[in-house]
Amino acid sequence: MKRVLVTGFEPFDGESINPAWEVARRLDGWRSGSHAVVARRLPCAFGAVRDALDHELTALAPEIVICVGQAGGRVDVSLERIAINVDDARIADNDGAQPIDRPVVAGAPAAYFTTLPVKAILQRLRRAGLPAQVSNTAGTFVCNHTFYVLRHLAETTHRGVHRAGFIHIPYLPEQAARHPGSPSLALDTLIAALRIAIETSIEVSDDIQLAAGALH
Amino acid sequence: MKRVLVTGFEPFDGESINPAWEVARRLDGWRSGSHAVVARRLPCAFGAVRDALDHELTALAPEIVICVGQAGGRVDVSLERIAINVDDARIADNDGAQPIDRPVVAGAPAAYFTTLPVKAILQRLRRAGLPAQVSNTAGTFVCNHTFYVLRHLAETTHRGVHRAGFIHIPYLPEQAARHPGSPSLALDTLIAALRIAIETSIEVSDDIQLAAGALH
Amino acid sequence: MKRVLVTGFEPFDGESINPAWEVARRLDGWRSGSHAVVARRLPCAFGAVRDALDHELTALAPEIVICVGQAGGRVDVSLERIAINVDDARIADNDGAQPIDRPVVAGAPAAYFTTLPVKAILQRLRRAGLPAQVSNTAGTFVCNHTFYVLRHLAETTHRGVHRAGFIHIPYLPEQAARHPGSPSLALDTLIAALRIAIETSIEVSDDIQLAAGALH
Amino acid sequence: MKRVLVTGFEPFDGESINPAWEVARRLDGWRSGSHAVVARRLPCAFGAVRDALDHELTALAPEIVICVGQAGGRVDVSLERIAINVDDARIADNDGAQPIDRPVVAGAPAAYFTTLPVKAILQRLRRAGLPAQVSNTAGTFVCNHTFYVLRHLAETTHRGVHRAGFIHIPYLPEQAARHPGSPSLALDTLIAALRIAIETSIEVSDDIQLAAGALH
Repeated sequence: MKRVLVTGFEPFDGESINPAWEVARRLDGWRSGSHAVVARRLPCAFGAVRDALDHELTALAPEIVICVGQAGGRVDVSLERIAINVDDARIADNDGAQPIDRPVVAGAPAAYFTTLPVKAILQRLRRAGLPAQVSNTAGTFVCNHTFYVLRHLAETTHRGVHRAGFIHIPYLPEQAARHPGSPSLALDTLIAALRIAIETSIEVSDDIQLAAGALH
Repeated sequence: MKRVLVTGFEPFDGESINPAWEVARRLDGWRSGSHAVVARRLPCAFGAVRDALDHELTALAPEIVICVGQAGGRVDVSLERIAINVDDARIADNDGAQPIDRPVVAGAPAAYFTTLPVKAILQRLRRAGLPAQVSNTAGTFVCNHTFYVLRHLAETTHRGVHRAGFIHIPYLPEQAARHPGSPSLALDTLIAALRIAIETSIEVSDDIQLAAGALH
Repeated sequence: MKRVLVTGFEPFDGESINPAWEVARRLDGWRSGSHAVVARRLPCAFGAVRDALDHELTALAPEIVICVGQAGGRVDVSLERIAINVDDARIADNDGAQPIDRPVVAGAPAAYFTTLPVKAILQRLRRAGLPAQVSNTAGTFVCNHTFYVLRHLAETTHRGVHRAGFIHIPYLPEQAARHPGSPSLALDTLIAALRIAIETSIEVSDDIQLAAGALH
Repeated sequence: MKRVLVTGFEPFDGESINPAWEVARRLDGWRSGSHAVVARRLPCAFGAVRDALDHELTALAPEIVICVGQAGGRVDVSLERIAINVDDARIADNDGAQPIDRPVVAGAPAAYFTTLPVKAILQRLRRAGLPAQVSNTAGTFVCNHTFYVLRHLAETTHRGVHRAGFIHIPYLPEQAARHPGSPSLALDTLIAALRIAIETSIEVSDDIQLAAGALH
């Protein structure tokens, strides 16, 4: 079996759960064709996440990697287009670190584009009745940091990772119940969306052309 | 058995489904203690909805009535506090009518407050992990019109209706998939919320005090 | 000269200024035809505002009264359609009071509609290039309380007040600079808008019909 | 005198004015210390903007370049952090072109960071009471395209451009008056903000450290 690594993070920003890990762990062991999903939980910490990710890539040798992160306040499934080479933390991470305007990887490119077929995923999600958008920023916190590290490793030391990207998901309803006014999506909705993202990443080698940009 | 009437509307504004009716029809026949739910679909038309509602109240003699409506763009379950005596339609209804600044019921009060225990419902929803808010406006379209008519009938010709109110719900995910950027909640989440609203309306006779107002 | 009373509030909710009073005081003494504006500052307190307003109505005998309030987070000039008979304070007012689900005036109507020609004002504002909307809720804090008291006094003890209403305005830019992500409008923009609201209230006796409602 | 080039665009997306050009042209000839501003209007067209910009850089040999663009729907002054190497047009540009997922410059880096001191600008804007944020995406339309081209030219053929970046601004009030619900800022507010951005770009050689990132 080929492996698909799906990661989620531990809770952060005062939350007791992280929807990304709730989704990822329910996909552990799920199979699609000749691929099987392995789920791993990552620390929400700038200093620890690179080693954690490097370790899993070495141990599991996945062909596809999808990191999932919580985006509290977003309304739907965000297929991230690009990771940028900067950390600018508005709050401290789970280890108390708060880097400001430091590169994720010194001397490395300003950005890496996702290698997931995000337009094909977007099309399939919408056809399946699942709300999604392509996003042009994953922020400047641990999510973007992890996404950048993942793509950097896939370009340098772990070239067997053929597809690598990041998906942001909204709060779960139980989180939104404590944040009045926040949008949310049910766990089942998110699991269904991730399955389609995984399947599409396995099946589609050349992404489709579909207008899904932003005016600003 | 005592009856709880739960209504939803037919689709409007270009939609092929209405989440309010999707929720309501799945609650038809559901029982809580000595009460049973009867679901009915209402027309999305200023001219037709009063007769339709009057007919159901006469035929079913419900003790509790909860009308449910679609609020595309809202993020969570909205417990409407008040119905106001004005129609001001931004678009035409399903019969092509577009009243502007006309009273719902000429000569009747400027507004009616809900008689659902909305604060107790809010508390129970949040404790159950379901996102909700008290809303201070149901708009000025067919939803507010229906809410106002319901409360007017309960105050005048159908005084056996002890509790009557309106709940707005967001798009379903399949609708949000066609409206990029719109929040949504899964059908199961909405059904769970409505069950709690019904149960609480049956069980709570005097609403609790809970700050859930708006600064503006 | 006939008098137009324009009120603003003292700062609240941690602010050091209130845009409503900043606008109102700059209109003090402004004349339009046979009318002159008198500006007064109101306390942001449930317990004190009724006496303050009653005192000014008695002392000034205005023909038109426009109360203005800050709506931090709103994007444009909100012409309030209706005041509702409930206080439900999410935060304490400037005297430390936080009433929950109490009537503004016990035994009085559930709501009062504005008697300002809000649709004519809306049309003139837009034609003048000033962003505005009709709003169907003034919230449940001191603004709505004041609006309700104003209309109640105009219906009972101060029947010489022919037009009375409430206008919510956004933050000033200097406030938004301290609340990243908040919309704002410049003081000059707000003053221009209020002048049009005053002039229109003087000139238009029967409001126009213009669709400006909300679907929900 | 050293030159600061400030550009704005022609109107697009159905608008009759573009706030970016309205601001830019009012800054033409403005002097700060030993620098003078030259304003130029750019076409809103993927195919034409590179030559137009190249021409101005050659003709004017500016030391600093700030391109300004309209971001209808944003609430404040957006200091763009990064330009990305992709065109993904949701609508056609003014020449009818709608590139999808094409590089801005084939073979060039995935992204360029701004060389404006955006954190110092942010701090000064806020201290001056002007609402602003650092933005991590300039979209994927002509604005991002222009920003990318600008930075690419400054890195390759026009190395005399020491500072180059992009600032997005909201609608003007007169535009928001035609787009109900949209935020806006007055022209004077925007001009004041741009002056500070220009002065800071002239005066600050090493940007300050100030947390202004996004969690997602």
